[in-house]
Order: sequence, then C-alpha cells, then structure tokens
Amino acid sequence: MNESVKPMLASDNASGVHPALFERMMAANAGHAIGYGADAYTASAERLFRLHFGEQAKVFFVTTGTAANVLALQAIAQSVDAVFCADCAHLYVDECGAPERMAGCKVVGVATTDGKLELPALEEAVAFHAGLVHRSRPRVVSLSQATERGTVYQPEEVRRIAGFAHAQGMLVHMDGARLANAAASLGQSLGAITRDLGVDIVSFGGTKNGLMMAEAIVVIDPTLGGALPSIRKQGMQLASKQRFIAAQYLGYFEDDLWLHNARHANRMAARLASALRAIEGVRVTAPVEANMVFATLPPSWIAPLQQHTAFHVWNPRVSEVRFVTSFDTSERDIDAFTGEMARLATRETV
Amino acid sequence: MNESVKPMLASDNASGVHPALFERMMAANAGHAIGYGADAYTASAERLFRLHFGEQAKVFFVTTGTAANVLALQAIAQSVDAVFCADCAHLYVDECGAPERMAGCKVVGVATTDGKLELPALEEAVAFHAGLVHRSRPRVVSLSQATERGTVYQPEEVRRIAGFAHAQGMLVHMDGARLANAAASLGQSLGAITRDLGVDIVSFGGTKNGLMMAEAIVVIDPTLGGALPSIRKQGMQLASKQRFIAAQYLGYFEDDLWLHNARHANRMAARLASALRAIEGVRVTAPVEANMVFATLPPSWIAPLQQHTAFHVWNPRVSEVRFVTSFDTSERDIDAFTGEMARLATRETV
Amino acid sequence: MNESVKPMLASDNASGVHPALFERMMAANAGHAIGYGADAYTASAERLFRLHFGEQAKVFFVTTGTAANVLALQAIAQSVDAVFCADCAHLYVDECGAPERMAGCKVVGVATTDGKLELPALEEAVAFHAGLVHRSRPRVVSLSQATERGTVYQPEEVRRIAGFAHAQGMLVHMDGARLANAAASLGQSLGAITRDLGVDIVSFGGTKNGLMMAEAIVVIDPTLGGALPSIRKQGMQLASKQRFIAAQYLGYFEDDLWLHNARHANRMAARLASALRAIEGVRVTAPVEANMVFATLPPSWIAPLQQHTAFHVWNPRVSEVRFVTSFDTSERDIDAFTGEMARLATRETV
Amino acid sequence: MNESVKPMLASDNASGVHPALFERMMAANAGHAIGYGADAYTASAERLFRLHFGEQAKVFFVTTGTAANVLALQAIAQSVDAVFCADCAHLYVDECGAPERMAGCKVVGVATTDGKLELPALEEAVAFHAGLVHRSRPRVVSLSQATERGTVYQPEEVRRIAGFAHAQGMLVHMDGARLANAAASLGQSLGAITRDLGVDIVSFGGTKNGLMMAEAIVVIDPTLGGALPSIRKQGMQLASKQRFIAAQYLGYFEDDLWLHNARHANRMAARLASALRAIEGVRVTAPVEANMVFATLPPSWIAPLQQHTAFHVWNPRVSEVRFVTSFDTSERDIDAFTGEMARLATRETV
Repeated sequence: MNESVKPMLASDNASGVHPALFERMMAANAGHAIGYGADAYTASAERLFRLHFGEQAKVFFVTTGTAANVLALQAIAQSVDAVFCADCAHLYVDECGAPERMAGCKVVGVATTDGKLELPALEEAVAFHAGLVHRSRPRVVSLSQATERGTVYQPEEVRRIAGFAHAQGMLVHMDGARLANAAASLGQSLGAITRDLGVDIVSFGGTKNGLMMAEAIVVIDPTLGGALPSIRKQGMQLASKQRFIAAQYLGYFEDDLWLHNARHANRMAARLASALRAIEGVRVTAPVEANMVFATLPPSWIAPLQQHTAFHVWNPRVSEVRFVTSFDTSERDIDAFTGEMARLATRETV
Repeated sequence: MNESVKPMLASDNASGVHPALFERMMAANAGHAIGYGADAYTASAERLFRLHFGEQAKVFFVTTGTAANVLALQAIAQSVDAVFCADCAHLYVDECGAPERMAGCKVVGVATTDGKLELPALEEAVAFHAGLVHRSRPRVVSLSQATERGTVYQPEEVRRIAGFAHAQGMLVHMDGARLANAAASLGQSLGAITRDLGVDIVSFGGTKNGLMMAEAIVVIDPTLGGALPSIRKQGMQLASKQRFIAAQYLGYFEDDLWLHNARHANRMAARLASALRAIEGVRVTAPVEANMVFATLPPSWIAPLQQHTAFHVWNPRVSEVRFVTSFDTSERDIDAFTGEMARLATRETV
Repeated sequence: MNESVKPMLASDNASGVHPALFERMMAANAGHAIGYGADAYTASAERLFRLHFGEQAKVFFVTTGTAANVLALQAIAQSVDAVFCADCAHLYVDECGAPERMAGCKVVGVATTDGKLELPALEEAVAFHAGLVHRSRPRVVSLSQATERGTVYQPEEVRRIAGFAHAQGMLVHMDGARLANAAASLGQSLGAITRDLGVDIVSFGGTKNGLMMAEAIVVIDPTLGGALPSIRKQGMQLASKQRFIAAQYLGYFEDDLWLHNARHANRMAARLASALRAIEGVRVTAPVEANMVFATLPPSWIAPLQQHTAFHVWNPRVSEVRFVTSFDTSERDIDAFTGEMARLATRETV
Repeated sequence: MNESVKPMLASDNASGVHPALFERMMAANAGHAIGYGADAYTASAERLFRLHFGEQAKVFFVTTGTAANVLALQAIAQSVDAVFCADCAHLYVDECGAPERMAGCKVVGVATTDGKLELPALEEAVAFHAGLVHRSRPRVVSLSQATERGTVYQPEEVRRIAGFAHAQGMLVHMDGARLANAAASLGQSLGAITRDLGVDIVSFGGTKNGLMMAEAIVVIDPTLGGALPSIRKQGMQLASKQRFIAAQYLGYFEDDLWLHNARHANRMAARLASALRAIEGVRVTAPVEANMVFATLPPSWIAPLQQHTAFHVWNPRVSEVRFVTSFDTSERDIDAFTGEMARLATRETV
C-alpha cells in the first residue's frame, strides 16, 4: 500500500481521531480508577446517552461495531430466532458470520432497493419462517441507518417497519454505525429517529465519526437487555480501562461533536456527488443522503484513480465504486480527487 | 465508590495509561490509514514483536485480555477439546464462561499450590480425559505467567510442563496478562520465557502494564494460527483503527517501557510485602514474585483500609486480601498505605 | 389432524418402517452388547457401507437427518467458514438454524432452477466471499441429491461442481436424505454418484426410505473426519444402543432394500405425475426425477384434497403443492388420490 | 471385544430392549403418520407423562440422554449462566463438553460424598460466582437421581437443595437417566420425587431401563420451556418418526414396565452387593441404593473377571470397579459372576 496516497475515500474508519477527544482521554488519565466501567467517566457518559435516547436507556460500551451489533442481537434474541436485515447489511455480509456464530441466530438477508428494507419483502420473508418448528422464529428486524448504500430511512419508513415488527412480536434493532450521519441528514435528534419511531435497541457508532475503538449498545426498551452486562463480559468486550471510551463520548456529546462531524462528512459527500454528476462517463448510482457516494465509472479509470486516492470497488462486474467521506475530509481533498477524475474524462474524449 | 480514594491497589488495570503512549497515539493520528490492520504502524509493531518472540511469530492485536485468551484457544483447539489450567486461572473463573462459550472447549481447572500448575496433578487430569469419546480430548495446557497468585513459574517448570504436553500431542498456551512482570522477575527476555521453553501461543498483555485496550495474541509455532485473521474478525475483535493499538506497542517496545514499567510494579510489590511482614497481625500468604501481594489481616481492618485505598478481598472466609501494584504506584503510595495499616495494628494492641 | 386420512403424500418420513427391519432389530436384541457403537452389528454395518462407498469410508450413525448434515459440516468446516447450498436446501431453510448454531458456519443460499445448484451462480457467491477477512471463508459446497424440488443432479453436473470446489480448496458435502432415490433414478451405484464424482462427505439418509431414526454420515475422503467420534458425542448423537441402528442397515443393504424401496417410491411419483398431467387445471411444475411431484392446482381444490390425503402446500402464493411418495405408497393410493382430483376437475368444468 | 462374554455388568445401556416394546413399536407401524410429533402416539404418551409429572408438564422426546440433559439446560439457562452439579455427574465428565458447547453455560463441578451434592459445598460454589460480572451467573442446580455412584437422594435432601436454589433465583434440573431406579428404591412415585420436591425440569431416561433411543425432557414448571420445540429442532433431536419413541413410552407406562424393570435391576444390584460383601478381599465402596455397585478388589482379579463379564474400572488407582445391573440381568448371571469371584478369592488364599 502506498502510504503517501492521501486522503482516503475508502471508508470513514480510515479517518483519524478527532483531536479534542485525545484531550478528553488525557484528562481522564489522572490517577487510578476502578476498572470495567465502575468509574466516574462512564457514569457521566451514560447520563449524556440518556439525554439523547431517553431516561430509561441503558448503555454498554464496546470496542468494535461488530461487537455492538452481535451483542445487541444476543441480548434480545435466542439462538432459535431469526434476524431479518437487508442483504447488503454489514450484519449479513461483513462480519465473518459473527452474528450466526456468537448470537447463534439465523440471519436472513432480504433484497432491497438502495439498501433500505421494504415492508412487502420483509413481510414475505417473515411469513416464510413464521409458525414452523423447522424454521428459526422471527424475532428481530435490523435496520442500518444510514444504510450500506448511503441512503437514509425516512422516519415514516422506520415507524411502519417497527409497527409491523411489534405486531408480530418482533423487536427492532438499528445498526447505527452511521446514525449520526442519518440524524444530520434528516435534521432530527438521535432520539427522534430511534426511540420515537419504535426502535428497541441501537448499535451506536463512534469510530466512523471520529472516535477510537468506541462504540455503544443503547438499549431503549427498558424491559430488554438485563443480561447484557454478562453478555458483554462473555463477549470479550468488557474493557478494563473503559473510562477512555467513556471520556471520548463526553467530548462527543458535550461539544455536539457528533453532529458537527456528521454534518461535515455529509456535506463532503454531497460536494463529491455534485462534482461526479458533472463528469462525462460517471453515473451516481444511489441517492446520496449521508456520507457515501456510489458511482459507476469507466473500468480503465479505477487503477489510476486509486493511485491518487484509496477507495473501494463495490461491484466489479458493473465497475461500480464506493466513496466514503468523513469528519476529516476536506473540500480540497474532494476537489483534488474530482479534478483528477475530470482530467481522466477529458483525456478519454480527446 | 469514593473517587477520591487514591491510589488503588485493586488491580493493575485500575492504573492509567503511560503518558508516552498518548504521544505515540497522537503521532499516529496524522491523516488517514487503511483500517483493520493494513497500516504502517501495525506492520512496524509486528516487527518489534518478532524481535522478541522470534522471526516466525504472528501477532494479532485485540482490545481485551479475555479476547486474547479466548481467541488464542479457539485458534488451536476444536470444540471437542479440553484445556487444562489452574483452577484459579482467569480463564477458569473470571471470564464469565467465555472460553467455553466462544472456543467451545471444556476448561478443566486443576488445583494448585500458589497458583502454579504442577505436573502430577496435570497428568492426572489429562489421564482422566484421554482416550474416551465421552470426554473432551486433551489438547491445551494453559499457564498463567505470572500466576493469579502473584507467583512466577521458573523456566524449568514451564519446560517440564511443555515437554509433557507435547509428548501427549497437546499444545501450550501462556496467559501473559502479566508476562512483563514475570520476565522482570526472572530477569529474562520475553522469548526466553516463552518460545525457548516450548510455549506455542501467548496472550501478551499490555493493558495491565500501562497500555490502553491493547492486548496481543502471539502465535509462536508457525504451523498454528492460520485461521486467526478470520477468528479475530468473527470474534468481534478486529478494530478498524488498529493503528492506535499498534502505535502504543511501538512505544512499549522501542523505549523498553514494558520492562521499566514491570520492574517498577514488582519493586512496589516487594516494598509492600516487606512492610506488611513487619506488621503484627498480618501474614503474607503467597510468595511475592511479581506485582501482587496476598495477605491475611484482621477482618476488622478491611473496611477502614478500603476507605484509604481500594483493594480486593480475595477470600472472605479467611480474611485474605489481594494487593496489586502497577507502573504508576509510587513509594509514597505504598508507605502511606502500610503506615495506615501499622496505625490500625497499634490501635488494636493498645 | 384426521388420523384416518390415509395414505399420506405429505412426506416420505410420514411412512412407516419396513417390516423386515423390525426383524433385524429383534434379531439384534439377543443379550447384552457394549454400547456406543462397540458392538458387532455396528462393525458389520460399517463393512457394508464400505462396500458401497469405498474401503476407506468411515461411517457414523446418527438419529436424525439434521444431525447428519450438521455434524458432517462441523467435521469439515471451522466456524469462520462458509457453506454454499441451494436456497431451498433443507440445510438452509428447514433446520431451524442448526448449521449456523452448531457448526458455527455461515450458510449461503444460492438461487437455483428446480433446486439444482448451478455453477455460474455458485461461482459468483464464492467470489463474493473469497479473500476478505470480513467474510466467511468459502469452504464447503453442499448438494442435495435428490434435491428439495425432486430433481436429480446428473453425474456430470456433480463432477463439474466438485471440480470447481476442489480447485478453490473447498470440499463437497452431499445431503443424501434421498440419495437412494437419486441412485435409483440414475440407475447407478451409491459410490458412482458420490465418491466417483468427487464428493467428500455424505449425509446418507435411511429414515425417508423405510428406516427408523437411522441416518449415517459417510466420510469418503480418508483425510477428513478425524474428530467425528468426538463431534458426534458432543453433538448429542452417540446412541448407546446404536446396534439397533446398525441392525437396520444390515437389512437395508444385504437385501438391497434401499434400492427396492427407492425404485418403488420413484415409480409411484412417476405414476402420480403422469396422472396429474392428464388433469385439466393441474400443472406439474418441476421435473419429476425422484419421489416428489410439484404441481400447481386451483386453490379451491386444496382443502377438499387434503381431507382425502395429507400433503404440503409448497408455495401458497401460486397454489403450488408438493407430493412425496415413499416405499409404502401403493398404486391404489395414487390412483385413489388422482381419481379424487379428477373428480374435482370434472365438477369444476361442469 | 469378545462377544460371547455374557451377561454384562458394564452399563445398563448395554442391555437390550424389552420385548413388549417391540410389540408396541410394531403396532405403531400401521400406515402413515405425520412426522415430527404430530401423531396420535405422541399425544397419548404425553398424556401418560402428565399423569406422572402433573397436568401442566410438557414432554419433549429425544434420542439420547446427552440430548435430554443439554437441551433441558439450554431451555432454562442462558449462555452467561452457570450450572452446578456433582463433579462426577455425567453432565460434568461424560458428555464431551456438550453442555458447555451447546447450552453455552459454565458447568461447575462440586465435590461430593458418594455422588450426592451437599448443601454447604453447593452454597460455597454458588457464592463464589454470585454478583460478579466476571463470573457466570448462578442459574441451575442439576441433581442426578440416582447418582453416578449408585446412591439415591432422600426426598428431604432434594427439597432442601431446591429450596436453596429457588431462594437464589435458581432452577432445579434433575438428570433422571436412572430416575426409575431411584423411584423404585424410594418406593415413591415419579411425581413425588420430582415435582413435589421442587424440581423444575427433568431428563427422564428410558434407554437405561429397557427402551431404545427413547429419552424425554419433562418440563414441570409451566412457565419454563417455551422455546423447547425450537431448541429441540435446532438441537438436531426432532425425530421425524417420533411415533416409535412415543409408542415405547405407551408400553413403559401403561404396563408399569418402568417400575417393574427398575425394581428388578435394583434387586439384582442388592443381590450382587450382598454376595460381594461375603468375599474376602472385596470391599463395597458406596451405598448400594439403586442398580449400581462400586467395589474395590485385588487388581489381579480384574483381567480374569472381565473375561467372564464386562464391567468398568472406575478408579484404576485404587482398583475400584463399577457393576451396573439392568432389567434383563438374571439372578443366575449374578450368581455365576460372584461365584467366579469367589473362586478367585479362594485361589488367592490357597
């Protein structure tokens, strides 16, 4: 890998850590603190989560997004249960079978348009499983907000799916690895796009928006999650020095850093999409609603562009690529990259 | 919890993060880096590990000690296998069943003297399982170095156990959450007390010796661990921003911080033990060979002492307590605490 | 359920036990025999399996088809591995998530025509997973022979898929719950349609063809399956009185009962299909190559027909039903049922 | 193995199947029946179970004792929970780690006298785990009745342990692989020694007392076990032809065969013990309260005696052996065996 290739549009987790958060961590580094979450920073951070997600919310810090998703599912589903999600969901394709292995559940991928689970397809998948001892019991619908395709569920869409789920005796998990981006996109609060719509449990991402190994499971329905302290421990995710995760969240919430960072990333994606749409030969292939842009471009461009900036080839068969912006992507980065692409386009047509 | 109670002798993981490591992390925070370990910091840190553990060693960073232990076992044992360890081992009593649940193995606790597995008891436990389809297959011996009782295996002891294990077709795992303290205690290198004695795979701890969410699995036997990249991912332990774990290890090894920190913690334990032995009514109950001191003391002292300094009651039935020192325990901390205890002793006898 | 409704076309496992096998079991009921497979009947039955599947084949008796499938997978795949099968495979939809939960694997369902996995779709699914630590490692292709749609892979089709699998370092599992029906359909030996084509491990069904709680895992590749004795025990499938499973297989093989039964069931399916094709309003929807017939029929017929004979509604949306014949289905049963259907058809058109 | 060595005292599962049960199975072999338990035989057998265990009892047939134990635990415990049992319990030492692997639980073995869990030791083990997130949550006490040492809990002993368990929020599982022998020994009904004493869930054994692959999970507490239908299916234990298990239980209960068989086996054990006590050099080492006899004898006798009759060497270090009688052990068998032993004793002293 050419380390000099900068900036990257490969993933928002290729970004760094927001400098303000290092200050928070260093401030938390004064003296000893009882480990495993029995510290004052954790208590303070939990209070901030409750401001956003409701007074009854329970918070469990973990170090990876996979852990947040898997342990959240384990907390609300038995091994004989089925979890329904988009067939492009991280849960379904990018966690090396962790949900199946760890939570023990069947994960059922449902085809979508632009990454958003749609009710008819969901209903059909649930109906296929319901009522037969030979099939896993429908128990959880998991929605990624924002989705893996960079789209954002409208509140009404989430509400309808949650209504269906609850009517079936199912629960709603939201994979919020990019929940901040969705909230920024919708111009709504974190609580408004989760709790208020019927979401029962959230994987709340920090790492993709400027934090370091700092994710959280937020249990919104107070009747759920009683075993999570033990599930997290057994899930190898109870960090002894958890105060350094908590300290980051103090900065993240107190300074509205979560919103500031997400808005910036979204703006950079919009800027990128706008420039791409003006380039001959490029087609933006999914609505740009958060911090991701999908586009097809001439196959011959991929190699030279990747020399300039790392990004991911999403679907090699149709030469579709994915660009992800982050809190530390600059306008100059975007402009330099789209400038490079424009040069390729010009050369092509000459 | 009274946050003003300082310092703590509760655990070495109640300590902070060594300031030099924050500098390392901030230095690694320049720009973007491809996530999940494909970064230059990880590559550099891996090189340093190989200097210590051998050119063929493979290194896998994880965020908790439980993860290091459990994923190491999963890498070398099938679910039908048995792992033998001390019945006070962290693996056996303090990981909420994670080894059984995650690696699927049977974990067999063997009674010990002062935390060190002894060959005759181990042989008996292995013989009980061997050759019967109804019992888990003997596959792994796990040694904690230093042990949970603060003792340290002599090289010859490890060599003999490893010899027995290998003769049985078994492998040797070392839980090295406090391996640095053991190396400091023995005055030997990390390689000399692991690889050279026949250890096949090591959980190498950092968090208890001044790092932050930074542990490592070190696979010494090059024929093992081929599936570990996937096992770590599925084990929810592949951190996207792994460069910040790796950066800490750069400082840890380059500046010999691991040894400096461990020596200091061991010295503080020795100082503490020495003072305790002089106090009427206190009995040090295990050899003090690393950074832990076990002692019995009058039950009535425990509450007032815990007001002064947090520590763990190890065995309430005999009023035995545990003190753990760390890289940031000062002589003044020790002296203040033992002074307080001496005052209690004096008052008692008045 | 109306118990007087007879015969059934619901499933071949609704059939009884062939009377000759009761005689075999009673013959094995003379005196004591050491349990868990260390008996003479098991040894004899294993010899018969080796005559069919090759001298190096290893045989493991279990009591359910789910167990045969799941433990076979566990024997050849790690939890980080992916298994690819038809998306209508029993493994994928009808085992309540057992493969995921027990073997720990990701099971990837691939869309098919008439239940048969086709190479291009398989290649695409494998390519999607290969080489990424975030995705389960392609390891096993599982083929159902005969398929869940009553079709039968031609030898060349299995050979090509096996060739692809082996070229990728993958293994081939065959779910042979109806392997006897496939062999009868193809007019080939059991070895010719498994071992000779590159199949590595087989779930060999007995229960659907006249046996009672008697299934077998046949490991063809002698380098595989070393842990299966323990895996079966841990998998709760080591029956102490295994001699009564083995005794059934003595009768099954010695008297060519397997072939006789399967041929008969296949013939009954052909007779049924032939009659159905002559009935106005009925359309046979999949090739009838073994002992299953799929057909669409007017929705209004389903309830009255089920009063006559139990059968399964396969796809309610298109009024598609499934009929399964078995060793004890008689021509009279078929004719009575199709006669009933013909009456409904006539009434309809009047 | 010398097949001519008859009878066996190796295990009660080396016995055959009671002939009356073959008749029951053959009677159930008339025509088709919908599989997976939706048949009339299953419904009838369930009614008989409810007569014994209470009107609210739920029954789940499985094919092995390991399955009964493991799935019963899975039904009432989460993976983060701990199960406490005797350290000689089948659950703990003879199921190849199945409880840990399948139910995911920590299984804690507690030392006993003669196989019976005693309250003080149990309380200590529970206290060690309670209240710490690092340790599995105390959830189940599992009692083997009769025990692995051939002893039988007195009703008051079970009641006290159940009382303790319930006071702790724990549940009581009874491994009743030999429950019939215990009931016969105590002269009490099956309900009196389980439900009436506070047992919540029972593994009810049949195979060791004359049945064939026929075990049952009996859920006594009606609030438990809601997921068991799915757990059994996922646990690979839902037999399609379950009617042949149910049919055996019809004979087992209707003809009081369970009691007749158990009484006989117990009498044979008493006869054996009585004869052994009269032989010089033999010492019966545990109370003989069911159908097992433990004794030490001169090491030199073991090989010649095993030529005569198979039995198990329980503890080779002290030359302790185990004899198990069954429904089909005859007085002549016992007398011939003890005669042989007496001859050895005489020869010795000559």
